[in-house]
Amino acid sequence: MARIVQKFGGTSVGTVERIKIVAEKVKATVEQGHQVAVVVSAMAGTTNQLVAWTKECGILHDAREYDTVVAAGEQITVGLLAIALQNIGVDARSWLGWQVPIYSDDTHGSARIERIETENLIARLEQGQVAVVAGFQGVGPNQRISTLGRGGSDTSAVALAAALDADRCDILTDVDGVYTCDPRVVPKARKLDVITFEEMLELASGGAKVLQTRSVAMAMRHGVKLQVLSSFEDLPGTMVIEEKPDMEKNKVNGIAFSVDEAKVTLVAIEDAPGVAATLFGALADANINVDMIVQTAASAPGKTDITFSVPGSELERSQKVIADIGDALRYQDIITSADVCKVSVVGVAMRSQPGVAKTMFATLAEKGINIEVISTSEIKISVLIASAYKELAVRSLHTAFGLDVD
Amino acid sequence: MARIVQKFGGTSVGTVERIKIVAEKVKATVEQGHQVAVVVSAMAGTTNQLVAWTKECGILHDAREYDTVVAAGEQITVGLLAIALQNIGVDARSWLGWQVPIYSDDTHGSARIERIETENLIARLEQGQVAVVAGFQGVGPNQRISTLGRGGSDTSAVALAAALDADRCDILTDVDGVYTCDPRVVPKARKLDVITFEEMLELASGGAKVLQTRSVAMAMRHGVKLQVLSSFEDLPGTMVIEEKPDMEKNKVNGIAFSVDEAKVTLVAIEDAPGVAATLFGALADANINVDMIVQTAASAPGKTDITFSVPGSELERSQKVIADIGDALRYQDIITSADVCKVSVVGVAMRSQPGVAKTMFATLAEKGINIEVISTSEIKISVLIASAYKELAVRSLHTAFGLDVD
Repeated sequence: MARIVQKFGGTSVGTVERIKIVAEKVKATVEQGHQVAVVVSAMAGTTNQLVAWTKECGILHDAREYDTVVAAGEQITVGLLAIALQNIGVDARSWLGWQVPIYSDDTHGSARIERIETENLIARLEQGQVAVVAGFQGVGPNQRISTLGRGGSDTSAVALAAALDADRCDILTDVDGVYTCDPRVVPKARKLDVITFEEMLELASGGAKVLQTRSVAMAMRHGVKLQVLSSFEDLPGTMVIEEKPDMEKNKVNGIAFSVDEAKVTLVAIEDAPGVAATLFGALADANINVDMIVQTAASAPGKTDITFSVPGSELERSQKVIADIGDALRYQDIITSADVCKVSVVGVAMRSQPGVAKTMFATLAEKGINIEVISTSEIKISVLIASAYKELAVRSLHTAFGLDVD
Repeated sequence: MARIVQKFGGTSVGTVERIKIVAEKVKATVEQGHQVAVVVSAMAGTTNQLVAWTKECGILHDAREYDTVVAAGEQITVGLLAIALQNIGVDARSWLGWQVPIYSDDTHGSARIERIETENLIARLEQGQVAVVAGFQGVGPNQRISTLGRGGSDTSAVALAAALDADRCDILTDVDGVYTCDPRVVPKARKLDVITFEEMLELASGGAKVLQTRSVAMAMRHGVKLQVLSSFEDLPGTMVIEEKPDMEKNKVNGIAFSVDEAKVTLVAIEDAPGVAATLFGALADANINVDMIVQTAASAPGKTDITFSVPGSELERSQKVIADIGDALRYQDIITSADVCKVSVVGVAMRSQPGVAKTMFATLAEKGINIEVISTSEIKISVLIASAYKELAVRSLHTAFGLDVD
């Protein structure tokens, strides 16, 4: 007997028919003798509708009211799933954030979970009752409903698993696991049986959208055993785990890419303290998310070149921000390029096994792909390349690192 | 300065545009210097959708889960209205049933309000904040959400007005007051400036659907000053008040009618104790709502005739129930008629002023309308007549009792 948290996302509960399928899946787990807490999102589309209504009612408002409206989506799903479970003979009850309670801070709209009271929940689980818990919501100070921000149901599930000391947290979704790369781009992509938290985090920040980054970080912090698997098929998924000494040592475990990147180079900027702070401070103030940053020596003495990437949709705004502070930066020229993408190779084993960078660069060179920017972390190497080469680069690297399915 | 409860129904908050109009109406009341608590229903159509989903998920379920799902409708409206108010500069916050709290009993799906805690609400009202309270919902034992049954928002508003000791409870709806009769049938119907609680109750049970019967009874019990008025126009409505000695003494203040009635007569049934109990007990067990009952002497000795009315849609089932217990009743014949309607004249003054029955029967006779069944209460006289004569009867009585608009 184990205690399991199962999380079902919006498409898995998008219609009454799907809610009934979810109920059958939960029943099967119960019949294996497990204690089950289910976390569900709003039915697909509901949250968007509710958010649109709040916007139509007015932009200038108290985020607590936004949360009151939007949390209704999960409230509907938990009640419906409890009914569907009861109808197939499974003892179940719904739990809203304030009923559990799942206490959060007061940053309404993107609240952080502070504490989950589990006494009542555990008592019911131990009686064999399934707990159907509303994801994405909690209760803030003064008994006001809070929400955790988009994608917050993953975080709810992980936080609940940690608080319940669950044996496993299953994230059931519309993909059947974590792949070495997006199968739509790399047909030979392979489903991973295991991946480490750190790799998962790097893949997520590199553009892979399987799990919300925040939930992975939380699972890592609390040692929650995460599994990503299909809500439609009955197959084992991918376990996200801590690194272990005896793990299979693939140098690279996944390849991520993100499109819609733009590159900006300021040529021959003054090489003086405070210049970078001025530049990136102004961009941050404008809420522009800068990703890769590289600084190189410029040809002129006392000068340097700075290159960085921003989302493609922010290129125009970025140029405006830079123009506004141009006097302070005193750059000679600005070069921008909108047609770039970021490709990253990720693997915890690259810490101990050198040669990954060499293989990566050689593979790209062999295909005639020019690298425009490079940045590295302990377990990731990212490059910016021309967008036109994205698929070629990703597939070549997938093969070069031995990730192709047999 | 007064303390006012304003209730807006589903059509008044049916779209975001209408919610904004409601916000303007509330703002106008606030600017008159009043303390305002607003009670709102779900957006028109929402409750039906949510109820349909619960049915699709399964019939056999815990009513607490039904309540969790359905209460989401009002939760959405209160948040949206609070946002709309805040956007036009009105300080407002939403209050869900469990946040007030509005404590109810545990008959989920049609719960009764037991107690409303008003301390927090009053503190905010006195600071000038508008309270936007979810109608139709409360919180039952064990912190579970309860709902009051269809039309329950009227009851929420009246209960809140009683608990807040409000100066007035305004029910804003899609009609602009209580009329002497349905204006669609009697074009000369007149809007009443005042009506007594008892008259309102009799009109409601006679088929007029302006206010939920339960809310009127509650207002009467607690002495809440009720006003029915239009949510779309800015006109005084109808005040529902206690009877006062100096009230204008119309013999009749309103005429109600209900269609879809059927008449059943059991001829020469045994006139013995327990027979009526057997008959109406069986009908009650089958959930058939019997309205008028009249017993008369039959021609044969030791026999009696019993006539009663049921909803037209229940006639067939009623006949089946009677056939099943036919041996116990030993009636000689059964006569049914589906094409009848009930017409009632209502007025508190008929208590002290005789002659209403005489005027009613003479008016109908003059038009050649045959009365099939008569029943009376202290302030109401009802007759069953052939449906074909409905409009003629109602208009003739409206004129005969001096109710026509000038």
